[in-house]
Amino acid sequence: MSVLVVGSVALDSVRTPFGTAERVLGGSATYFSVAASFFTEVDLVAVVGDDFSEDHIRFLESRGIDLAGLQRVPGETFFWEGVYSQDLNQRETLETKLNVFEEFRPRIPASYRQDEYIFLGNIDPELQIEVLDQVESPRFVACDTMNYWIEGKPEALRRVLERVDILLINDSEVRELSGETNLLKGARRIIEMGPSILVVKRGEYGALMFSEKSTFWAPAYLLDEVFDPTGAGDSFAGGFLGYLSKSGSLDDEDLKRAIIFGSAIASFIVEDFSLNRLRTLSYQAIEDRFMEFRRLTHFSV
Amino acid sequence: MSVLVVGSVALDSVRTPFGTAERVLGGSATYFSVAASFFTEVDLVAVVGDDFSEDHIRFLESRGIDLAGLQRVPGETFFWEGVYSQDLNQRETLETKLNVFEEFRPRIPASYRQDEYIFLGNIDPELQIEVLDQVESPRFVACDTMNYWIEGKPEALRRVLERVDILLINDSEVRELSGETNLLKGARRIIEMGPSILVVKRGEYGALMFSEKSTFWAPAYLLDEVFDPTGAGDSFAGGFLGYLSKSGSLDDEDLKRAIIFGSAIASFIVEDFSLNRLRTLSYQAIEDRFMEFRRLTHFSV
Repeated sequence: MSVLVVGSVALDSVRTPFGTAERVLGGSATYFSVAASFFTEVDLVAVVGDDFSEDHIRFLESRGIDLAGLQRVPGETFFWEGVYSQDLNQRETLETKLNVFEEFRPRIPASYRQDEYIFLGNIDPELQIEVLDQVESPRFVACDTMNYWIEGKPEALRRVLERVDILLINDSEVRELSGETNLLKGARRIIEMGPSILVVKRGEYGALMFSEKSTFWAPAYLLDEVFDPTGAGDSFAGGFLGYLSKSGSLDDEDLKRAIIFGSAIASFIVEDFSLNRLRTLSYQAIEDRFMEFRRLTHFSV
Repeated sequence: MSVLVVGSVALDSVRTPFGTAERVLGGSATYFSVAASFFTEVDLVAVVGDDFSEDHIRFLESRGIDLAGLQRVPGETFFWEGVYSQDLNQRETLETKLNVFEEFRPRIPASYRQDEYIFLGNIDPELQIEVLDQVESPRFVACDTMNYWIEGKPEALRRVLERVDILLINDSEVRELSGETNLLKGARRIIEMGPSILVVKRGEYGALMFSEKSTFWAPAYLLDEVFDPTGAGDSFAGGFLGYLSKSGSLDDEDLKRAIIFGSAIASFIVEDFSLNRLRTLSYQAIEDRFMEFRRLTHFSV
């Protein structure tokens, strides 16, 4: 069972209190794909320029990620540059160059069209709709978005939401999309818009999953050193959907476990720049961390 | 087994987005006592002026709280006035009148001196030391403090910390007291100062408990309407210590359950102004909410 992901593959320059990384591998679809690849097969749809190195291609291939949907075109790859505050809770974008991403239109290869698990990364909602129009029988569609699209393309975003099963966004996006200050009320309003599940990513405070049936509260793993938070949200989504694809089930207990596997893999990604930590990560280490999440929150009656 | 609490009994005027309450019952020791009274007997040490109404006295007595240590002196009761922001995450103090609290010296009645569970509310650390000097064989001392004392009386506070078992403070106080931005490092540093347990209160994000053995992450209960957050932290402490006193055990599982009972009772207090919600609360409702906390965080392997 493959997961299909559409989003950005990018080169990032990042400055954190602990160091600097120049033009390293980044992008929402990259983080998602590599995280998901620990659990399942991944079909990637994205675009890169001719400056995108063969080393990056080989790394993605080494993770078993299918690159038939990775367009390679003349020009430069999407570039993002940002700097994090001392406590890592704020980041400032210094530069965004869309480059080849500006003209990106997702083309889903024939070999991907029967994929049942779909992740629509944080791109223009009109492109997200184009993706949905090209897949044949999606079983579970997950979607990310951001304030830029909530404000700029509210109509298109509404049409996307009618067609997705799960939306993964952060606190402030919940408030902006729903118009509610109270998180619980905001969640209910968003579930009325289409998704049957809302996942709220809260960074160092963990994640919440709302469905009509239940609410689930996942902690964040406490680390001595958070080195670089870039990609945590997309890795979370990758672990989440990757686990669901692997398990083949969408029942409540599997959704909860998927949230914890997503949280576990996100807790690794922030330990180093770019995707470096995942280059040496073992599946056993992910399972061990899953059990640590259990010890962190469980109590007896 | 009684819990001894020393702190403020006050009259509060509070404005929230949902309404206004004028000169209602408040104060750290009040919230603590009433919350703890659902679990155990409470011995209260505090001071009020001659404007403190008999109705409030009768309410405290109706909760079985021992008032032998409540000094009643000429003058006005401690008064606090505050206003909360629209999202309730910020509050501004409009006025603080210490009144009779300014000259308060805690005198522990003979009948309280063998109490084994002690809560030192958020008062001058020099007064907290005076309390500890008057009790005979405390088994478990819990303590609150705030930035005002961390900055203003660091030496006295250090001497308190050497004599307490557990410190309950919020995120920013952890960072200020420890000098560490990272919460995990800050917690370790504070545990080196004396307390064997640190509880970090994080409001809508729940609470964390650090000990040498383990870390425990408690969620906050999600409410449709948070009406007035005043007293949530002190009610949390009251439920926590009240439950420990009731159970008679201090092992890890009891400490975790105590955190959840504290969280449960704090989730009720914010549903109305002052202590109003606790006037009609049943123990069964607290136990039901305890089980809801379990459903909120537990997952199977």
